[in-house]
Amino acid sequence: MLQNDFYSKENHGEFEVLDLGDFELDRGGKLPNAKLAYATHGKLNSSGDNAILFPVMFSGTSGSLKHYVAPGLAMDPDKYFVVIPNQLGNGLSSSPHNTPDPYSMSKFPKLSISDDVRAQHQLCEHLGIKSIELVTGWSMGAQQTYEWAIRYPDMVKRAAPIAGTAKCTPHDALYVDVYCDALRSDPAWNGGEYTTANAVDTGLRRLANIFALMGVCTEFYKQEQWKNLDFKSKDEFLTGFWQGWFAPMDPNALLAMADKWKHGDSSEPYGGDLGKALGRIQAKTAVIAFSEDMFFPVRDCKAEQELIPNSELHVIDTLWGHFAMLGLAEEDFKEINRILAQLLAS
Amino acid sequence: MLQNDFYSKENHGEFEVLDLGDFELDRGGKLPNAKLAYATHGKLNSSGDNAILFPVMFSGTSGSLKHYVAPGLAMDPDKYFVVIPNQLGNGLSSSPHNTPDPYSMSKFPKLSISDDVRAQHQLCEHLGIKSIELVTGWSMGAQQTYEWAIRYPDMVKRAAPIAGTAKCTPHDALYVDVYCDALRSDPAWNGGEYTTANAVDTGLRRLANIFALMGVCTEFYKQEQWKNLDFKSKDEFLTGFWQGWFAPMDPNALLAMADKWKHGDSSEPYGGDLGKALGRIQAKTAVIAFSEDMFFPVRDCKAEQELIPNSELHVIDTLWGHFAMLGLAEEDFKEINRILAQLLAS
Repeated sequence: MLQNDFYSKENHGEFEVLDLGDFELDRGGKLPNAKLAYATHGKLNSSGDNAILFPVMFSGTSGSLKHYVAPGLAMDPDKYFVVIPNQLGNGLSSSPHNTPDPYSMSKFPKLSISDDVRAQHQLCEHLGIKSIELVTGWSMGAQQTYEWAIRYPDMVKRAAPIAGTAKCTPHDALYVDVYCDALRSDPAWNGGEYTTANAVDTGLRRLANIFALMGVCTEFYKQEQWKNLDFKSKDEFLTGFWQGWFAPMDPNALLAMADKWKHGDSSEPYGGDLGKALGRIQAKTAVIAFSEDMFFPVRDCKAEQELIPNSELHVIDTLWGHFAMLGLAEEDFKEINRILAQLLAS
Repeated sequence: MLQNDFYSKENHGEFEVLDLGDFELDRGGKLPNAKLAYATHGKLNSSGDNAILFPVMFSGTSGSLKHYVAPGLAMDPDKYFVVIPNQLGNGLSSSPHNTPDPYSMSKFPKLSISDDVRAQHQLCEHLGIKSIELVTGWSMGAQQTYEWAIRYPDMVKRAAPIAGTAKCTPHDALYVDVYCDALRSDPAWNGGEYTTANAVDTGLRRLANIFALMGVCTEFYKQEQWKNLDFKSKDEFLTGFWQGWFAPMDPNALLAMADKWKHGDSSEPYGGDLGKALGRIQAKTAVIAFSEDMFFPVRDCKAEQELIPNSELHVIDTLWGHFAMLGLAEEDFKEINRILAQLLAS
């Protein structure tokens, strides 16, 4: 275990913790005394059917995208009970730095997207949720969204996977390998047994730069769109935005999530038949893709959408590429909300 | 200096060497007893006006793309005198590993694209070339092509910059930074003073993987196009193709070229006015771009083409992305040849 003050309520907002008990993992082994951290907004109604589930992305927590949950927006807490579950391994839930031996740090077990979704299903039972109005999530949140809609088709009325896929593509897996290798390249990495929370700063910086390279599109840099965030130079954008984002995080937590990302494949229980898996979905589904996404390109999202019975593809044209979901461009934020509101109204 | 047997005629084909003398560099300082290695195919005619200049890309040598020079192809050595100059710093010309102190290894001076082109102009004088039928090159070869057509407009009748830009874009510069940082991340890097030719193998592998990530498009991997090269798996393609390509190279040579790439800006002598620089071009110009190029996207090539008086844009639709120029897909090779032949016939 390792002290890391980043993973606090001060930094990520209020959250609660569900004790999952000894949690069996789909890739073998178990996570003893597993904890699932989650945040809720709004109130569950008496019939237990006004819930929205909003799982989080790589490197995210229940605090990262909570600006999507507010009165007047699609995910309105005056109307819906919005649950934001943290990923297992993300730093707030059971994670390498906060799990005691023999599962601490480099010895943390391999997780899968399906583990997250099964844990979240347990959370729904705990909270009394009977059916879900909408599951939506971005990137790894989309992976969880797909897994939810495929695994529990009766329970999910609507789904909106945003810039993510049900099955990790070979190029996407390569992207994960490259940034994980960059993270591990730090001289202080020590096989995952670094000795202070900030020891792997060089590796985190390298990982951040690879996200900077592929996270927004080439034209974003040409047009110097970082000026809209009040950065004074590209270098300041790299330092203040990308490196600043990853710098406080636990490297083993990032690797735990990345490994799930890379191995994400909701078709596995169906013999690897993606058509069969996606064909199970009963939810009315809005697949959202970003026009310039360099690791979840529109065509990959479209190929999966076409296998989902009651689905539509929405492509949002944005220079923010994969990171349009942060909603830092007002028009992206509005358009994402418009599509989610439309889906919820249908 | 460091022994590196990779840079031999056995590996790169026949080449000759021009002594440039003490060569003044545009970014300051000089390269004493500078050598320019070059290969020629065909014969110069008596009026000295049947030359084609075919400068090389990052990591390339005069041997890399010589399959484009053959009877029956656009660059026909029975008709043209084809000169393939190596870049300064590329391992065959004066380079970090073969230059004596005080300019050896990490102390090798900073070069620029304009240095290459001035050295090549000296080579043309040496060979008796009066005017040039065509300058063409890919990637960093395109940078040199632009520099030629802008710097010596009277001498260049036709130009075909392929998948490259006259001015390095901010995203492209970030790409260079990321792969150079990956190269330097090797524990044996030692500030560029590694002690054996193969010491920096981890860094070279990391660099190679970043090229694998951005060098061909996402769909290439999805369709498992590497099967067309008889690789049995994606991993084998990474190891055999990308890592195998870079593994024998000298890291300081790659950095010397990369630094030129990043600082490439043919508009610099014209106050940074790209319109003014490209407006100087008198050559009939065919700008060639590859549809899925992830670091020289079509729109960046198009933006420059539109500033060139007598020019046309040709976009080749290919899953090979930036690396379509290798011509490993027969249709790419044919299409590039067709465009070059058309340009030469006009």
